[in-house]
Amino acid sequence: MTTTAETGAALRLHDPNVRGFASDNYSGVHPEVLAALAAANGGHQVSYGEDDYTARLQELMVEHFGPGIECFPVFNGTGANVLSLQSLLPRWGAVVCASTAHINMDENGAPERIGGLKLLHVPTPDGKLTPELIDREAWGWGDEHRAQPLAVSITQTTELGTCYTPDEVRAIATHAHAKGMKLHMDGARLANAAAHLGVPLRAFTRDAGVDILSFGGTKNGLLFGEVVVALNPEAAHGLVYLRKMDMQLASKMRFMSAQFVALLEGDLWLRSASHANAMATRLRAAVDTIEGVRPTQKTESNGVFAILPPGVADRLRSSFRFYDWDEAAGEVRWMCSFDTTEEDVDSFAAAIRHELRDYRDGQAR
Amino acid sequence: MTTTAETGAALRLHDPNVRGFASDNYSGVHPEVLAALAAANGGHQVSYGEDDYTARLQELMVEHFGPGIECFPVFNGTGANVLSLQSLLPRWGAVVCASTAHINMDENGAPERIGGLKLLHVPTPDGKLTPELIDREAWGWGDEHRAQPLAVSITQTTELGTCYTPDEVRAIATHAHAKGMKLHMDGARLANAAAHLGVPLRAFTRDAGVDILSFGGTKNGLLFGEVVVALNPEAAHGLVYLRKMDMQLASKMRFMSAQFVALLEGDLWLRSASHANAMATRLRAAVDTIEGVRPTQKTESNGVFAILPPGVADRLRSSFRFYDWDEAAGEVRWMCSFDTTEEDVDSFAAAIRHELRDYRDGQAR
Amino acid sequence: MTTTAETGAALRLHDPNVRGFASDNYSGVHPEVLAALAAANGGHQVSYGEDDYTARLQELMVEHFGPGIECFPVFNGTGANVLSLQSLLPRWGAVVCASTAHINMDENGAPERIGGLKLLHVPTPDGKLTPELIDREAWGWGDEHRAQPLAVSITQTTELGTCYTPDEVRAIATHAHAKGMKLHMDGARLANAAAHLGVPLRAFTRDAGVDILSFGGTKNGLLFGEVVVALNPEAAHGLVYLRKMDMQLASKMRFMSAQFVALLEGDLWLRSASHANAMATRLRAAVDTIEGVRPTQKTESNGVFAILPPGVADRLRSSFRFYDWDEAAGEVRWMCSFDTTEEDVDSFAAAIRHELRDYRDGQAR
Amino acid sequence: MTTTAETGAALRLHDPNVRGFASDNYSGVHPEVLAALAAANGGHQVSYGEDDYTARLQELMVEHFGPGIECFPVFNGTGANVLSLQSLLPRWGAVVCASTAHINMDENGAPERIGGLKLLHVPTPDGKLTPELIDREAWGWGDEHRAQPLAVSITQTTELGTCYTPDEVRAIATHAHAKGMKLHMDGARLANAAAHLGVPLRAFTRDAGVDILSFGGTKNGLLFGEVVVALNPEAAHGLVYLRKMDMQLASKMRFMSAQFVALLEGDLWLRSASHANAMATRLRAAVDTIEGVRPTQKTESNGVFAILPPGVADRLRSSFRFYDWDEAAGEVRWMCSFDTTEEDVDSFAAAIRHELRDYRDGQAR
Repeated sequence: MTTTAETGAALRLHDPNVRGFASDNYSGVHPEVLAALAAANGGHQVSYGEDDYTARLQELMVEHFGPGIECFPVFNGTGANVLSLQSLLPRWGAVVCASTAHINMDENGAPERIGGLKLLHVPTPDGKLTPELIDREAWGWGDEHRAQPLAVSITQTTELGTCYTPDEVRAIATHAHAKGMKLHMDGARLANAAAHLGVPLRAFTRDAGVDILSFGGTKNGLLFGEVVVALNPEAAHGLVYLRKMDMQLASKMRFMSAQFVALLEGDLWLRSASHANAMATRLRAAVDTIEGVRPTQKTESNGVFAILPPGVADRLRSSFRFYDWDEAAGEVRWMCSFDTTEEDVDSFAAAIRHELRDYRDGQAR
Repeated sequence: MTTTAETGAALRLHDPNVRGFASDNYSGVHPEVLAALAAANGGHQVSYGEDDYTARLQELMVEHFGPGIECFPVFNGTGANVLSLQSLLPRWGAVVCASTAHINMDENGAPERIGGLKLLHVPTPDGKLTPELIDREAWGWGDEHRAQPLAVSITQTTELGTCYTPDEVRAIATHAHAKGMKLHMDGARLANAAAHLGVPLRAFTRDAGVDILSFGGTKNGLLFGEVVVALNPEAAHGLVYLRKMDMQLASKMRFMSAQFVALLEGDLWLRSASHANAMATRLRAAVDTIEGVRPTQKTESNGVFAILPPGVADRLRSSFRFYDWDEAAGEVRWMCSFDTTEEDVDSFAAAIRHELRDYRDGQAR
Repeated sequence: MTTTAETGAALRLHDPNVRGFASDNYSGVHPEVLAALAAANGGHQVSYGEDDYTARLQELMVEHFGPGIECFPVFNGTGANVLSLQSLLPRWGAVVCASTAHINMDENGAPERIGGLKLLHVPTPDGKLTPELIDREAWGWGDEHRAQPLAVSITQTTELGTCYTPDEVRAIATHAHAKGMKLHMDGARLANAAAHLGVPLRAFTRDAGVDILSFGGTKNGLLFGEVVVALNPEAAHGLVYLRKMDMQLASKMRFMSAQFVALLEGDLWLRSASHANAMATRLRAAVDTIEGVRPTQKTESNGVFAILPPGVADRLRSSFRFYDWDEAAGEVRWMCSFDTTEEDVDSFAAAIRHELRDYRDGQAR
Repeated sequence: MTTTAETGAALRLHDPNVRGFASDNYSGVHPEVLAALAAANGGHQVSYGEDDYTARLQELMVEHFGPGIECFPVFNGTGANVLSLQSLLPRWGAVVCASTAHINMDENGAPERIGGLKLLHVPTPDGKLTPELIDREAWGWGDEHRAQPLAVSITQTTELGTCYTPDEVRAIATHAHAKGMKLHMDGARLANAAAHLGVPLRAFTRDAGVDILSFGGTKNGLLFGEVVVALNPEAAHGLVYLRKMDMQLASKMRFMSAQFVALLEGDLWLRSASHANAMATRLRAAVDTIEGVRPTQKTESNGVFAILPPGVADRLRSSFRFYDWDEAAGEVRWMCSFDTTEEDVDSFAAAIRHELRDYRDGQAR
């Protein structure tokens, strides 16, 4: 009889030793998460969330965020964001966000088309909103011609790898609330923020005034799954119905919740995120010593953004996969993950150094 | 150091030996599927579907349905149905379906609200449409006041446990096509149909004229995941964009595809479905011998529908979980799964027999 | 210099002496309404509803329905219905209505697609809901899989020409409210109901428990225009924003309001509706004496529904325009309007009589 | 017996001699249009567009735009824009437009919420797009994460009173078409553009490559009504169904069409627009001689935009109504209409001159 490991090997279609710097969703599942899936298997559990794992997840979320919160596991980040924003807003609501926000740039209009929301987006230098930036679009309440700005959405850490401090989040929340707006946080990389800030999750979320949170798991070593956490349930309406209507209700929810239980029961969430951050910091430190590479953002989570001379990115990509961020500007993005190793970083840094030397040599000729 | 099995046990919150007859999504994951997840883990794979497992899934789907088809893994059945129907229909389209269809009864209006579709539903005795039943709503083309009936949706096997023969599907497809309508099949229990009919999957889908298929995996032993299969890709538009917009695009898609690969590479899909069907047949055979239980539908897949005398269902539920189907009529639904055992069925049948005897005794007093 | 009358004649493209029985929206504008449009012309008035005519309309509506109501003129009946229902319901709401309801049959899915609503429709013998009929679909609150039935919509007078009594409306309102549902009335022919019942408008609307009303003007001699009247403004949310978003906000609103002022300031609304009803009653009386015509509904407003022998409808239509209602059943609909004359009715009745005689003669041969 | 004129006077609630510079939709109806409404009255005409006036309108549109075009009267500008864009785009489409576009700023998100469209808007100095500006957002085709930019929308004349030349429109159309995008023109003030350019309507629309047009009537002396003109019907899909679904189908359409017939049969459209433009030009000429007023845009249609010193606008508004355009910048908008007189302009200019003198005196003290 073959063992599970052997069966697994037979089913394997890819090389498990290849890693790159393209995205934290290129990585797989943390072994502890996989073990949790196996543990949650067997027997029957009530579907659609009335299972023991989802009950445990709710307890864990309360441990992290305090009593009174409510949590709703969903399939993916776009689902979490749209669901969160719909629950905060009436049909005529609009959301102030950064122009670089995932909801604006990467969700094929789902917030508008599926959520029925208008996005009022504001250019920022670093992906971070401020009260002043919010005010560029936060106006026109009572004017029936204008989609009513009734929520703000911020991303933590941002799409540009930067991180709001608890004070910065609080300033935004206070400002938003004073104007009658609610605050959503897209926490696709929430754990990376906690790791960077060195504070508990609630310090820069619930305690800072965030009303609802998309708590990301996929980019932190889960197979799939995010959780909408209503930190201020009075601000959010109809989540239970909206989740189903938004096609985000998993039938075998125990397996989504079990992954989050594995993440949150101990310190796996923090361990994985801290490691990914550390790898990015290591890469940034190396890059800072390479002439010709110009970092464009602070490295406050698991990504490094930099401008490379023409042609260098494409040559680098022959051995390491990563994405252009702003192709016109020559800006690239390098992402680290829970499974990125120091050797991965060092090899990549060496390759960058090598390509830059070649480039400079070419220029010098 | 603890083994994975021990870790798993530590993480277990439920009793893996409890099973019931509530739903095929109360069951967990088939061990072979779990092994496939582990095999697909490790290293980096391109996200959003450009991975090796999704490529293999496409090959397997071609083996099952023939060349030219295109497949799009999605998160759940509602997502698969809405995505399929949107791809078939213009913004002004309507769908003729049975009143009992999942899209009409169980999706919180997602087809209407998210899909922007009008459902024109028709009462049926057994959950099955016919050309004649379709014609009750298939009219009014060219009338701008009427949502245009441009698609038919059937469920195989139906929500009532009945199964269309290949000829019945073909008759519907021919009828629909002749009227300019396309045909969608909600195959949440597609494998159960193949098991019941004893024919290949394509015999009652592509070969019978179905244009697009929601191929269900969750109810057949997967952790999660369905696949939209465009059997006639010329009839379906924009699936790649609609999937993202409908919040059904998994980033770590390799894990969704790897499960389907495990299902379809060998005969796991058929083994599991055949077993579930066999358990329902066993239950039905037992029930047919119990005085006072009145089966309401043919048992052509993994569910038994029956009317019980007043009070019996609630007493039965003290030991076995299951759902009312039509509470007013006293009708209940008993579902079997890939992990239902003969002992489960026999114990349950004994309990039914026991309760019915008690009931008759009570009546006789 | 030519007079306005002469200019008008020059611009006329149609024969103003031709009338039929097709629809009350085939008729034109009542001369008093046209005069009101001219009176409202000239000078500048604030757009989008802050004009003197809309202010006057609000006063008149208060006279008819009592203090505290709020009114929102819109373009057409579909707009009024969708706007009303959206204001009553959260995103996850559903509406119980008769299968024959205009919102279900004649609005190309606008309530579903634009309103984001699920319709739960119930067959009725005469277009009228009852508490018992409502209960066929009013269930499943708290079940996330079911679109939540949170409103009932009734049409007064119905699409079948029948009329709810104040007591019947009250019974529905009481029933709906007891179940946490709100009540919308589609009053496309509201004035016809008042004329039939011989009671004030509020007797069978606000006083009977209706929460929001689509008050129709177009079918009662206006050029265009309906008014959403929030009879219970606490039940309706965001009408001012929804109207704009639903593309129902007229810029030169004074002209919409001025028409309703003309209708409601005196008794024009009642005069026109009473006349239309009287013409239908006259037609019905005549028809009742014609052998071979089988009326199918009570004549309680301005329409007569009847089944004709095969071929008769088409022959009749060579001289008088009207519509089939249920083509398969041979049922036709004859509508009267504010401008239908007694001569029109008598000629039409004579023609029916004539055709029926011919038909019977043909049968006898 | 009272005459119509006397009845009218009795119904009049406002002072027909008061005019301002707030908006071209503060004005009323041109007398020739009112006469056309009267002429279209009387008798029965088929509803929903199968009437003689709509047929005539189609002929007139063909005279203006050439054979093969199709026209669809709708209620208002927002309706025309949303309908047009929906007809051009699949469900996953996005529209590149100027940030100042009416569809982006003034329609309460209807294009997003009702149309299901994503707007990709670009800041412009003067409300006008160019191929270069379009390219800032026209990218990402084939990327499922990005709403697909498949149309461009321009406004003629723009919301800032500027006007595209035929060559500028052609350059945009050529650029858009080369990239697989279609071109929509929001022609709320289309006639003002023709008047400014001194060319036929088709010169800067169909002949310049515009695919679909929102042809505005309300701002040019109609009571209400716009027409969607499919200049390239092959680019537009389902307009007949979308119009109903979008709640823009008028039942008594003859009265909408008759107004446009009055506008387009002779030169009323051009006369009215030329007059409004001339009044704005007169105002601009006067303003150019007033020290302290800083015009911000070219005056190429019926509006003047200018920055006033602090406090001046509010004092001016005590006698003439007008709107702030950019309150933070002190920018105001002054609109002229078909009924603005030379005396209106001269009085207003005198008032501006007076207030500025007072302001300068105050500053000097």
